[in-house]
Amino acid sequence: MDSLRERTHLPFGSGKQMLIGLHLGNGYGSQPGAWRMPGVDPESYTSFDVRVKQAQAAERGKFQFIFLPDGPGAVITDIESESPAFNLDVMMTLAAVARETQYIGLVATGSTTFNEPFNLARQFKALDVMSHGRAGWNAITSSGDDVAANYGRKIPSSEDRYGRAHEVVQLIQALWGSWGKDAWVHNQQTGQFAKKEQILPISLQGKYVGSRGPLYIPPSEQGQPIIFHAGGSPNAHELAGRFANAVIDAAFTIEDARAQRNAFREAAKRYGRNPDEIKYIPGLMTTIAKDRRAALDRRIQLTGHSFRQRAGYLQQMLGIPIDAARLDEPISKELLQDARPSRYDPRAPHALKIAKEGWSLRDILAHGVIDYHPVIVGPGIEAADHMQAWFEAGAADGFWISPDVNSDGIDAFVDEVVPILQERGLFHKEYEGKTLRQHLGAPDQYGIDPRVSNK
Amino acid sequence: MDSLRERTHLPFGSGKQMLIGLHLGNGYGSQPGAWRMPGVDPESYTSFDVRVKQAQAAERGKFQFIFLPDGPGAVITDIESESPAFNLDVMMTLAAVARETQYIGLVATGSTTFNEPFNLARQFKALDVMSHGRAGWNAITSSGDDVAANYGRKIPSSEDRYGRAHEVVQLIQALWGSWGKDAWVHNQQTGQFAKKEQILPISLQGKYVGSRGPLYIPPSEQGQPIIFHAGGSPNAHELAGRFANAVIDAAFTIEDARAQRNAFREAAKRYGRNPDEIKYIPGLMTTIAKDRRAALDRRIQLTGHSFRQRAGYLQQMLGIPIDAARLDEPISKELLQDARPSRYDPRAPHALKIAKEGWSLRDILAHGVIDYHPVIVGPGIEAADHMQAWFEAGAADGFWISPDVNSDGIDAFVDEVVPILQERGLFHKEYEGKTLRQHLGAPDQYGIDPRVSNK
Repeated sequence: MDSLRERTHLPFGSGKQMLIGLHLGNGYGSQPGAWRMPGVDPESYTSFDVRVKQAQAAERGKFQFIFLPDGPGAVITDIESESPAFNLDVMMTLAAVARETQYIGLVATGSTTFNEPFNLARQFKALDVMSHGRAGWNAITSSGDDVAANYGRKIPSSEDRYGRAHEVVQLIQALWGSWGKDAWVHNQQTGQFAKKEQILPISLQGKYVGSRGPLYIPPSEQGQPIIFHAGGSPNAHELAGRFANAVIDAAFTIEDARAQRNAFREAAKRYGRNPDEIKYIPGLMTTIAKDRRAALDRRIQLTGHSFRQRAGYLQQMLGIPIDAARLDEPISKELLQDARPSRYDPRAPHALKIAKEGWSLRDILAHGVIDYHPVIVGPGIEAADHMQAWFEAGAADGFWISPDVNSDGIDAFVDEVVPILQERGLFHKEYEGKTLRQHLGAPDQYGIDPRVSNK
Repeated sequence: MDSLRERTHLPFGSGKQMLIGLHLGNGYGSQPGAWRMPGVDPESYTSFDVRVKQAQAAERGKFQFIFLPDGPGAVITDIESESPAFNLDVMMTLAAVARETQYIGLVATGSTTFNEPFNLARQFKALDVMSHGRAGWNAITSSGDDVAANYGRKIPSSEDRYGRAHEVVQLIQALWGSWGKDAWVHNQQTGQFAKKEQILPISLQGKYVGSRGPLYIPPSEQGQPIIFHAGGSPNAHELAGRFANAVIDAAFTIEDARAQRNAFREAAKRYGRNPDEIKYIPGLMTTIAKDRRAALDRRIQLTGHSFRQRAGYLQQMLGIPIDAARLDEPISKELLQDARPSRYDPRAPHALKIAKEGWSLRDILAHGVIDYHPVIVGPGIEAADHMQAWFEAGAADGFWISPDVNSDGIDAFVDEVVPILQERGLFHKEYEGKTLRQHLGAPDQYGIDPRVSNK
């Protein structure tokens, strides 16, 4: 039965279309130098106007969602010269965006480790109602003693963090489902406000968390928010396989991404789910310009100040001596013949490939060979080609895009990449519906999912 | 020195003006029947449009703030026929209002018992930045096992709740102050994003909570949010006396209100503060119409269905037998001579006074003699007279208004009461500034208040 369902969604590229999300972080963009670029409002970090405008730009491009990662109070490496990476507060940002957009999905990270589940349930469901069914919760465990210190404690063990995460997600879904689909009557003539028998306590008590409920919020247009997860560990596979409709990840090669995607799909099957219910969404960073040279120059303007330091890292990555002072010169062919790409860095083979193309050291680094995701530095068609290749290879159901600079980088993607994907039939031209579940092809969810509550 | 400062703000009525806040709860209004009234959107409970419109109406009336009480998950007595009392989520509501108003202060309850302090600090400061300096946090302890059950535990003792509350407020103010006034440089030319030496960890660890910090949010236009408190117990006096700039309360007589106001002022003095830094704000419920008769009829339409039940409570209040079936008749003079107003209900003397005026039982109840605050049922001038009397008697620095029905009750107050108060010189005609601190006459606050951190 599962395999039959699976087949109806394959092969790729024939009718099935990819998803696109926008990474909305500190308001400037994904590159540390973004806040200093021409045309960038230096107050973007605190500006909700700027966030709303960026989300509207993504909506113009028919993106299925914006994604706001979060890590409560992670240490900033260099606040003297760089912006913090995250939003002031993800829920307040999404509330602002919800009021001033119409279609785009609103997804944010909420820690299962450092939140009271009842509070988290309440805020995401309120956002879901406020946005008329466009909320998604990226349910992740928090790690790092740095983060835990902001909560006055030590980070729990991985076992305890994931144990608690399973309970928290189950409890929150139960709270979201504590009003039946038709529970809210609000009939002024009859005087019936709600059907009491359809609003029930959840009375869950686990090892880590518990709640009586109910939550006093009726269903949204999509029932309740969607669960996202982020990460790629075996623990992540289990949590996402059980609960998630989408996974946010980082992967540097088609092979790695395909393996991860399959691992999540297998995990979903273990929980009795159709694997197509989990969309695997790796990241892509973009510097889009009219040609490769212009894009490289833009990237040099953005991040060139860090190239001497990065050259040192490239040396480790390739296993050859690199003179950081000679940024204008290519790495010699002799040296490159001796290169041994690090086994510990999945970006190393790509870095070597770029180096062998004969670019100067500066241009090699400007290709973004050392970054958090695969990087496109070039015209829109290069991004479209990358996305098509991954999508058709079964390595991705979609991508979350981190433009280098948000102010013009989102528009560049919308104007230069999206039309190519649409022309190739790989990306929708209009929103199919108004809820995030409709965008992701996930069924509406009311009450408590019996598969989940039975586990 | 304190007494000198105090004198400069007295006597009342000569230049000093009152504050007015709007109670924004479930979106319908303060009376249980509000959701069924003509012209009321039956979906107001989930409508952020409605909340924004109501806040805008209060801003038109130059109210200093809106106040959103909250009690996470308190049990609803009769969801079958009544709306829950609170917002879906107070922070999401205030985020929406912040984007679509310009002046009015935004105050919500946040439990010190059932929140992670770091999360609460972050959300209120984000709101403060988002609203350009208009946020206020009503810091209260949560009580009741019903609420605690939503968090999977029992309610802590009063000692532990207030012990934790003192630590939570201190910690949150420290997090708010963890960026110095000029820490955020964001100079695109020099490349300095922030002054690292002005962004400091707080490293507080108490008996109940702790945090390292800093919080990565720069100061707002008022520095940081204002602290409100609600309640009237000795514990409340201490917490508010130490931290609060305003107290939300319920008081039924001038004498009680004056005693409470003085208790808070004395508590402030004990913490070395100028007592004028605490504004005492009791509640007032309003049904405004062109005359008393029209107002009583409106109130009967709203709540008449509960009068038989309430007649039973009135009987206890007055200590005389009352026939709930005879709603059309006054209570006889003979019975009223025997009445002994309950010592346990501060509303009883007022109820007896109304009864002695000869109103029918229905009209006695329609005066709102059994409600959560003093109630004005009549033309605007009656509300203005009440407010002036309390204000000039030193019983209040302002009032939080709970209209019976929000849809037209806020406008009625703005159009019928506010102009009278303005004419009498008791209420401002324009906002004096754009921040909540300016509205309340509280100084901006940057960094950590040395008086607080030294305690």
